[in-house]
Amino acid sequence: MLRLGPLAAAGRLLPAGPRLEPPRPAGGRVSFLRCWPPRLPGPVGDGRPLSQQVRAAADSAGGGGGRGLALKTPKGTRDHPPAHVALRDHLLAAVVACFKRHGAAAIDTPVLELRLQTPPLRAPVLPIPSFQWLSSCSERAVVFAMATMQVPFARYLAMNKITNMKRYHVAKVYRRDSPATTRGRYREFYQCDFDIAGQCDPMIPDAECLKIVHEILSDLQLGDFLIKVNDRRILNGVFAICGVPESKFITTCSTVDKLDKVPWEEVKSEMVEEKGLSPEAADYIGEYVQLHGGLDLVERLLQDPKLSQNKLAKEGLGDMKLLFEYLTLFGITGQISFDLSLARGLDYYTGVIFEAVLLQQENDHVEEPVSVGSVAGGGRYDGLVGMFDPKGRKVPCVGVSIGIERIFSILEQRVKASGEKVRTTETQVLVATPQKHLLAARLKLISELWDAGIKAEMLYKKDPKLLKQLQYCEDTGIPLAAIVGEQELTDGVVKLRDVARREEVDIPREKLVDEIRRRLEP
Amino acid sequence: MLRLGPLAAAGRLLPAGPRLEPPRPAGGRVSFLRCWPPRLPGPVGDGRPLSQQVRAAADSAGGGGGRGLALKTPKGTRDHPPAHVALRDHLLAAVVACFKRHGAAAIDTPVLELRLQTPPLRAPVLPIPSFQWLSSCSERAVVFAMATMQVPFARYLAMNKITNMKRYHVAKVYRRDSPATTRGRYREFYQCDFDIAGQCDPMIPDAECLKIVHEILSDLQLGDFLIKVNDRRILNGVFAICGVPESKFITTCSTVDKLDKVPWEEVKSEMVEEKGLSPEAADYIGEYVQLHGGLDLVERLLQDPKLSQNKLAKEGLGDMKLLFEYLTLFGITGQISFDLSLARGLDYYTGVIFEAVLLQQENDHVEEPVSVGSVAGGGRYDGLVGMFDPKGRKVPCVGVSIGIERIFSILEQRVKASGEKVRTTETQVLVATPQKHLLAARLKLISELWDAGIKAEMLYKKDPKLLKQLQYCEDTGIPLAAIVGEQELTDGVVKLRDVARREEVDIPREKLVDEIRRRLEP
Repeated sequence: MLRLGPLAAAGRLLPAGPRLEPPRPAGGRVSFLRCWPPRLPGPVGDGRPLSQQVRAAADSAGGGGGRGLALKTPKGTRDHPPAHVALRDHLLAAVVACFKRHGAAAIDTPVLELRLQTPPLRAPVLPIPSFQWLSSCSERAVVFAMATMQVPFARYLAMNKITNMKRYHVAKVYRRDSPATTRGRYREFYQCDFDIAGQCDPMIPDAECLKIVHEILSDLQLGDFLIKVNDRRILNGVFAICGVPESKFITTCSTVDKLDKVPWEEVKSEMVEEKGLSPEAADYIGEYVQLHGGLDLVERLLQDPKLSQNKLAKEGLGDMKLLFEYLTLFGITGQISFDLSLARGLDYYTGVIFEAVLLQQENDHVEEPVSVGSVAGGGRYDGLVGMFDPKGRKVPCVGVSIGIERIFSILEQRVKASGEKVRTTETQVLVATPQKHLLAARLKLISELWDAGIKAEMLYKKDPKLLKQLQYCEDTGIPLAAIVGEQELTDGVVKLRDVARREEVDIPREKLVDEIRRRLEP
Repeated sequence: MLRLGPLAAAGRLLPAGPRLEPPRPAGGRVSFLRCWPPRLPGPVGDGRPLSQQVRAAADSAGGGGGRGLALKTPKGTRDHPPAHVALRDHLLAAVVACFKRHGAAAIDTPVLELRLQTPPLRAPVLPIPSFQWLSSCSERAVVFAMATMQVPFARYLAMNKITNMKRYHVAKVYRRDSPATTRGRYREFYQCDFDIAGQCDPMIPDAECLKIVHEILSDLQLGDFLIKVNDRRILNGVFAICGVPESKFITTCSTVDKLDKVPWEEVKSEMVEEKGLSPEAADYIGEYVQLHGGLDLVERLLQDPKLSQNKLAKEGLGDMKLLFEYLTLFGITGQISFDLSLARGLDYYTGVIFEAVLLQQENDHVEEPVSVGSVAGGGRYDGLVGMFDPKGRKVPCVGVSIGIERIFSILEQRVKASGEKVRTTETQVLVATPQKHLLAARLKLISELWDAGIKAEMLYKKDPKLLKQLQYCEDTGIPLAAIVGEQELTDGVVKLRDVARREEVDIPREKLVDEIRRRLEP
């Protein structure tokens, strides 16, 4: 299995060199202002060439030397420098490997989804939690970016009349709430989803989703974790027998969901004062939702005289028992907790719900304890596809979403604390020359290496100093240097240098590629 | 090197089974309408729960049974089913492998960029070729999605004061012109960019960009191709000596760019009638821009009495000579053509420009000749970073963009014509049972395989028929089936079936993982 191994050596910016040539003038108009469709009558803006308009805007915009042309990213978004992307790609590779191990195919849907604005909806344009594309198309439609990929997946299934599919989807998604970038909450973020759609025998795919969470969190070696499991039917059953009217199930659910952050007394007072439940009903609910345990708790609740009379709860508890049976076969019940306080935010869940949390621990790799919430979650949503289908045909679905951004933050902090640098390139060899007038020799050799599939770099100077070339290797973690000087050219050899050991040995030119491959074998 | 190998077996939808349980009711409100920030006063829309609003909208929207709730993708976008994504990932892997071979690091920037709307610009909101995010932030800013990644790259360099960097970036980008989806022109599409920023000795990074194009097109085995090269300075020099006023350089450039699609006579008449050049000037230009050749042509133009007097042209021709020297060392001049009609659309190019085209050919893999234009292009843009920098500091850049969507269309057509199916999953083993009441045995075995890193699936039924399980292997291209029946459980073995050969052999359970690995070695 893919495990995050040690992360080796050095960031990668080329060493700054002296400026060699005077800056050349810009060519003219700036292209990103030009791709407006030709239909549009007349010139854009005030009619001047757009590069002039941009410059004028920049000159008068104030800030940063009076030329502050949008020198920042939009609110709630950020750039990802090479060290970020290298770590993230590593992480995504582990997640995708697990999804593929479970036989999922990948799909991709547009970043934007379409919602027709028909009279009864009359939703104002603003409250749509999204980017909006100022579309020139005539239909009265709002195009918006998704904050969850289960909705586009449901739309995809309904649109293509697919009733069975196991797919994963890794993509950027967008949310329009207030960003809290210090807490790692951004408006643009990655999502990794795995979902199984189709009629299945009870709890088999649900159990697989939990196995997937277990595998990914184990593979990533994030430390101890717990996967909380519950079922919306059990929760609804509890509310019903406690006398909560059905119209208040959802709002009560979201209050219960706070139990992992605040004590019961606060949850109770919200139920009574804000949600209008009687203190007795709240106390009654409290007796149930503070329970957590394993198969024994499921068995106990199945014997509960009131709860076992409720049809939904009984169904949910029966399935929970089955789930524990399957999870026992998978050997993962040690990290599973049946937790009646788990409610999950999303409203479209209809059955099993789950959420994985990392457990606080003494960890000598981390300077201060990392505070993290849920790192994965999901559940069963059997009604969503039917909402898109013209005939209301339902396709049962269960899925899991991996909280890649939170896991990324943890790994990033861990890397930082370890003092290791993430290597952001994979270059194996630097092609170097020790004397002047050997650019041609370098170009010829590096070309041979590229054609043989070797990852190779050279400095973009005609006559770089050897010391500077070797320094570049050390700075960026390149393990080998292939050096061709006049003597080597005469002898038909290349001096191969082990950068870390600072050892050099002459290799016959025709054997160089094999020798490099041999040295870099894992 | 990574080469696109034969693409094996079968699409991947689970076989449809009978419905087992009645559809469950949806939980309540639909989450994608809920993430609006809590600041917003009052309920969204007409105050009813949002799931009710959505249903009401759907019911009255007409079309498709009266519930047509946005059952399509936004204009100019499309879904990518598994077969698409599998092929595209294969293609992207080859491109990224080449970028990494050349030592590039990956960066990622937001899909959206910010442009301050300051008074002198006064650009109306609509003509910005973009999605716009209806932002609640107070600054007068327009946030828009990019159609090229060189602009965000330049912004990234300026913002972080980076003067040297070799990076690649693979991401979705957006353009707002009229989509022509039948010609494969979408509003949402993938872009693969490789750029080298920093002061370098002339033409060394430029030559590497051309080598990269050559490697990628060779690796992908797309057939014969030609890389056209020119230099904006040479073109501007030609215009200058032909008497074109400097204010008309850019517009003349875009007229010249049409020479690969229309005959010279049409280009000339556009120059004279639309662009206001004299017929003599147009003819004079025509003498130059219809030239193409190799190093010999460069040498000839360097001797040209008029052109060699023009400072810019002389500089460009000198660099072009150097470029050909380097490309000779790379051994790729056979696919390079110095073509004076190449102008490139983007205005920010300042030096070398290039574009790769596939050559029409007899190809028995393709039913009808594929009409494709440019599959890669790029050039030098030394002024763009300076436009973002508050102090106008310039960072010279040269880069290449791989036309992944066009290459994808070609490969897709080729796969279609070959009759081969793209396998969309990588599952190695189906865990199957031949009798009833063996679900537990299947779950236990598949769990062992997953934990050993084997890609394994099973059907989500308690008691599936063996024939159905084997059929699923054949349909989806799974090469092996691991079968556990009562006899196998008693004997401590697993029956391993080679699906293609229909051969079965008993393997001791503890040797199963090794045997599967051995069978699947490449």
